[in-house]
Amino acid sequence: MGYREETLEGRNAVIEAYKSGKTIDKLFILDGCQDGPVLTIKREAKKAGTIVRYVDKERLDEMSKTGKHQGVIAFSAAYDYAEVEDILELAKSKNEDPFIILLDGIEDPHNLGAIIRTAHQAGAHGVIIPKNRAVGLTATVARTSAGALNYLPVAKVTNLSKTIEDLRKEGLWFVCADMDGEVMYKLNLKGAIGLVIGNEGEGVSRLVKEKCDFNASIPMKGQIDSLNASVAAGVLAYEIVRQRMN
Amino acid sequence: MGYREETLEGRNAVIEAYKSGKTIDKLFILDGCQDGPVLTIKREAKKAGTIVRYVDKERLDEMSKTGKHQGVIAFSAAYDYAEVEDILELAKSKNEDPFIILLDGIEDPHNLGAIIRTAHQAGAHGVIIPKNRAVGLTATVARTSAGALNYLPVAKVTNLSKTIEDLRKEGLWFVCADMDGEVMYKLNLKGAIGLVIGNEGEGVSRLVKEKCDFNASIPMKGQIDSLNASVAAGVLAYEIVRQRMN
Repeated sequence: MGYREETLEGRNAVIEAYKSGKTIDKLFILDGCQDGPVLTIKREAKKAGTIVRYVDKERLDEMSKTGKHQGVIAFSAAYDYAEVEDILELAKSKNEDPFIILLDGIEDPHNLGAIIRTAHQAGAHGVIIPKNRAVGLTATVARTSAGALNYLPVAKVTNLSKTIEDLRKEGLWFVCADMDGEVMYKLNLKGAIGLVIGNEGEGVSRLVKEKCDFNASIPMKGQIDSLNASVAAGVLAYEIVRQRMN
Repeated sequence: MGYREETLEGRNAVIEAYKSGKTIDKLFILDGCQDGPVLTIKREAKKAGTIVRYVDKERLDEMSKTGKHQGVIAFSAAYDYAEVEDILELAKSKNEDPFIILLDGIEDPHNLGAIIRTAHQAGAHGVIIPKNRAVGLTATVARTSAGALNYLPVAKVTNLSKTIEDLRKEGLWFVCADMDGEVMYKLNLKGAIGLVIGNEGEGVSRLVKEKCDFNASIPMKGQIDSLNASVAAGVLAYEIVRQRMN
């Protein structure tokens, strides 16, 4: 595990980073630069939704550490993801029942950061996110996690349903956040548990939901649909904390 | 109560809006425009931290409803704040003990919006915010509240301590979110209650905290300081919901 920010300088370094699927958080390009490689970089940046700033040569020279920026400097967030085993290991080393939060497709980096922060404070042993159709660990996520990303293992998996099956063999039960589920206060959420939180708009996907043991709902008394995803994760995580403390 | 977005067109309308203290969320100015009134508007916009976009005449003509934009169009969020009495009235009409969330200086509009959303879903009867050193109801708050702002009364008061004193006469008890307080699960949070949430960085101010009856903490097991303000508000609000349902 480990989070760090990387600086990439020069056209090839930046083009390679995009090709390898790295997340570029911020990109600085020399104003007025229009040659082939720079146009390629602009195209990749647009595809990836990178924030681009056009600056003058003095500014780039100032930022450059190598002195060889060739008109392009990029900042990228690099994180060595943990393995699911690391999360189980952490629980074991603390002599606690595993408590894992699984996120089925969170898209907003602020939500992901806030959930990582909450997971760490609630005493969860790790967070698991899917590889596709979800935000990964970017600089915004790191910032919003308020430091928690330095302590909490986050694993990225190809298939969340498969991971749930594997973890079930380790003795975990799975509870799915679901508006139509049983009111959370009435469920037994003690023991080795995985809490599954869905996408901001659509909740937990059908395939993942089918793998869960029960569905838990937060009582909703208002006239709108739901809570913000990070608030819902917090409320559910702390119901688990409460039951564990009892 | 009522939230709406207003479009202001023309130099005088926009200057007057700033002078009257209205919140301008977005400002469009004709690119290259440099005369006296426009410079005044730019100065006011800078002071207020408004997002300014410089656009061409075609774009402004397209946005204009009156056809008389004079190079300036502003979007403002207008909200008729509720009175504290309206909040008590709502509780009474539902035949419920009042449940009010008081925010001592929330600065981030996303947090304010998420808290309004949570308050409504948790069955609170209203939110009270202070006039100064806090974000008011802007378009971002309305959007983040996911519609809750259309249902939940929000009152703005000059002096939060004074409001707490007044509400105490109506039979409310006040619980303050405080990291050094008693663990929330051990407190009795039933009955007519006001939940006080502090500023993102500094928590609840000393003067307001002194007016509260007890301090409640959320158990923190991690190595960082706290939770995101809107997550903390959600966790505490739902502990009140749990105790009320018992």
